[in-house]
Amino acid sequence: MKLSISKHELNEAIQQVAKAASSRPTIPILGGIKIEVTHQGVTLTASDTDISIQSFIPVERDNLVIAHVDKPGNVVLPAKFFVEIVKKLPSENVEIEVGAHFQTLIRSGSTDIQMVGLDPEEFPVLPSIEHNELFQMPGDLLKAMIRQTVLAASVNEQTPILTGVLWSLQDKQLKFVATDRHRLASRIAQAETAADYRFNNVVIAAKTLVELSKLVPDQHGLVDIVVADNQVLFKIGNVLFYTRVLDGTYPDTSKIIPSMFKTELVLDTKNLTDAIDRAYLMSREEKTNIVRLTTLEDGAIEISSSSTELGRVTEQLEAKQFDGEALKIAFNSKYMLDVLKVIDSEQIFIGFTGAMSPIVIRPTDHNYNTYVILPYRTTN
Amino acid sequence: MKLSISKHELNEAIQQVAKAASSRPTIPILGGIKIEVTHQGVTLTASDTDISIQSFIPVERDNLVIAHVDKPGNVVLPAKFFVEIVKKLPSENVEIEVGAHFQTLIRSGSTDIQMVGLDPEEFPVLPSIEHNELFQMPGDLLKAMIRQTVLAASVNEQTPILTGVLWSLQDKQLKFVATDRHRLASRIAQAETAADYRFNNVVIAAKTLVELSKLVPDQHGLVDIVVADNQVLFKIGNVLFYTRVLDGTYPDTSKIIPSMFKTELVLDTKNLTDAIDRAYLMSREEKTNIVRLTTLEDGAIEISSSSTELGRVTEQLEAKQFDGEALKIAFNSKYMLDVLKVIDSEQIFIGFTGAMSPIVIRPTDHNYNTYVILPYRTTN
Repeated sequence: MKLSISKHELNEAIQQVAKAASSRPTIPILGGIKIEVTHQGVTLTASDTDISIQSFIPVERDNLVIAHVDKPGNVVLPAKFFVEIVKKLPSENVEIEVGAHFQTLIRSGSTDIQMVGLDPEEFPVLPSIEHNELFQMPGDLLKAMIRQTVLAASVNEQTPILTGVLWSLQDKQLKFVATDRHRLASRIAQAETAADYRFNNVVIAAKTLVELSKLVPDQHGLVDIVVADNQVLFKIGNVLFYTRVLDGTYPDTSKIIPSMFKTELVLDTKNLTDAIDRAYLMSREEKTNIVRLTTLEDGAIEISSSSTELGRVTEQLEAKQFDGEALKIAFNSKYMLDVLKVIDSEQIFIGFTGAMSPIVIRPTDHNYNTYVILPYRTTN
Repeated sequence: MKLSISKHELNEAIQQVAKAASSRPTIPILGGIKIEVTHQGVTLTASDTDISIQSFIPVERDNLVIAHVDKPGNVVLPAKFFVEIVKKLPSENVEIEVGAHFQTLIRSGSTDIQMVGLDPEEFPVLPSIEHNELFQMPGDLLKAMIRQTVLAASVNEQTPILTGVLWSLQDKQLKFVATDRHRLASRIAQAETAADYRFNNVVIAAKTLVELSKLVPDQHGLVDIVVADNQVLFKIGNVLFYTRVLDGTYPDTSKIIPSMFKTELVLDTKNLTDAIDRAYLMSREEKTNIVRLTTLEDGAIEISSSSTELGRVTEQLEAKQFDGEALKIAFNSKYMLDVLKVIDSEQIFIGFTGAMSPIVIRPTDHNYNTYVILPYRTTN
């Protein structure tokens, strides 16, 4: 293998795939980036077996030469050092040449780097996925759906299935759900698919979705998504992102969300966020993050929290709308903040069915998002 | 105590003093900020007994009312919560009222905060320092001297005196020295003082100087400095910064710095920095950070480092000037990078007196800075 390539393009592709290289590989090859060179271009791949990312650099783009290939070939280079050194090479032109035993020479300006390369034959083989049944989503919508659901996924690895986000598709409606048993986030959207295309129980790790999100441009351009038996493939321009789906059956959450309420509030999202944020500062001292919401006589509400050592924060807020019974309820202020931060609407609806029942939070201007928070049972 | 005050001004003063409040106080009062209110203004003080910072907010500045004092008084409030809550108060106007048992009420917009205040009588008394013998330094020069010396101070608390920077003044020349026994940094400057004013063995903790540095504006305005027996006081506008000096006698470093050299190099600072930075990436893998410098036949030098697992980086650099014997020497690349990053000159001089002798680094355009790095003894 021998080629010269643009440092800028090489660096960009390396940054895209490097996240999939294992930072503490059980075997060295999993901490590597595979470089495949053909006369068409250069393919970089990293894989920790859970996720795999592949990026393709063509030899030419828009009549501009990006790479010049003297001799095709393959090699695997240790990711951590390779990622950092390419960024810092002195010249915009980088030459890479692989010799016997995968010894690799990287040359740029007056810098010479000899790297111990690994055998590409030992690199994990990417899952083969049939591209028949794919659907498409605008990148910005995919990012929004991820951002608005991952917050409720569990971080406790003892219940692996709950560390994921449940994807389902039916009647051209795509739905994401995440819950850690204390709170739930759900988001729906219309998808561009065949009317009879459907799937269920596709659960993808929340942290994988966060990584995927970083690779998706914040634009309306379409992302291809292929859901296979135990893998999902995302195609974002020249980048392929493969992820394993989590094993197990996701619990049925359909009955958790109340549809009738005894108390209904509409509040200004920013005012409520700021008030809860201040109460959170106090509640944090008690570790429990308990904040109380109390309805007042005149259609206002009071948010309060207290700490025996520090004192007490009391906030008054005007409700835009207030229907139903008076209420006093306690909940985790951090959970509420997590929800308020991802709701993009100016006003929110909060529905209660009593001090011990799930709290439902929704934007007022559409019904794509639904959030549920379980209240605290407090003696006071 | 009762007053109303501008949130912006209060917040700014809190941010200035908060660094001196102990984050893990042995007694609660040391984790507090003392608020003293008189008809002249508001004084905030925090102290962990090693350093104390005081900031004064006048009731009026440039004919603008900053605070309105109804009733003078004192209280101590827990710093951590106070720092964060003031930043997030909803209105630009903040009312503070202290009742019985130092119960403190903070009111802003529709936010009410009750805080458990502490008795100001228990707060540490600031050192009393005679202001007779003060000297002055431009703020930007003080910051530069700190930045160019703290890097060589020891981080090992087992030799407390070496965690400090040695200050001395003689013949109107101020000198800072720091060393951790493996490297040394020294910086001199002319000071505005009486010709016969002198001091020696004033050692201030490097981490204290870094904190001080953050409070000094990056401008030419003068900072007043008062050196007392075991305290130094810095006056920066409305802010007073007190620090304890470290106990013990600083070792004599005057004989460490060679003045005659067998090999002398002048190099472009940026080119050398970049080359060593790349070699550092490789050397880091071996934990030792060993980089080798070898003079070549044609007035060039070679920088190299290697790792058994990863490979080898080789860099060639043209010397701007090269006098004396051929040389092969090994040193800690991290130490060299630390020095190169704080030298503001375009070219640097490096002097060697053999592979086992201290390496001296200086800017070429002035002799205010001197750096010394001890080489590694390697078998190769």
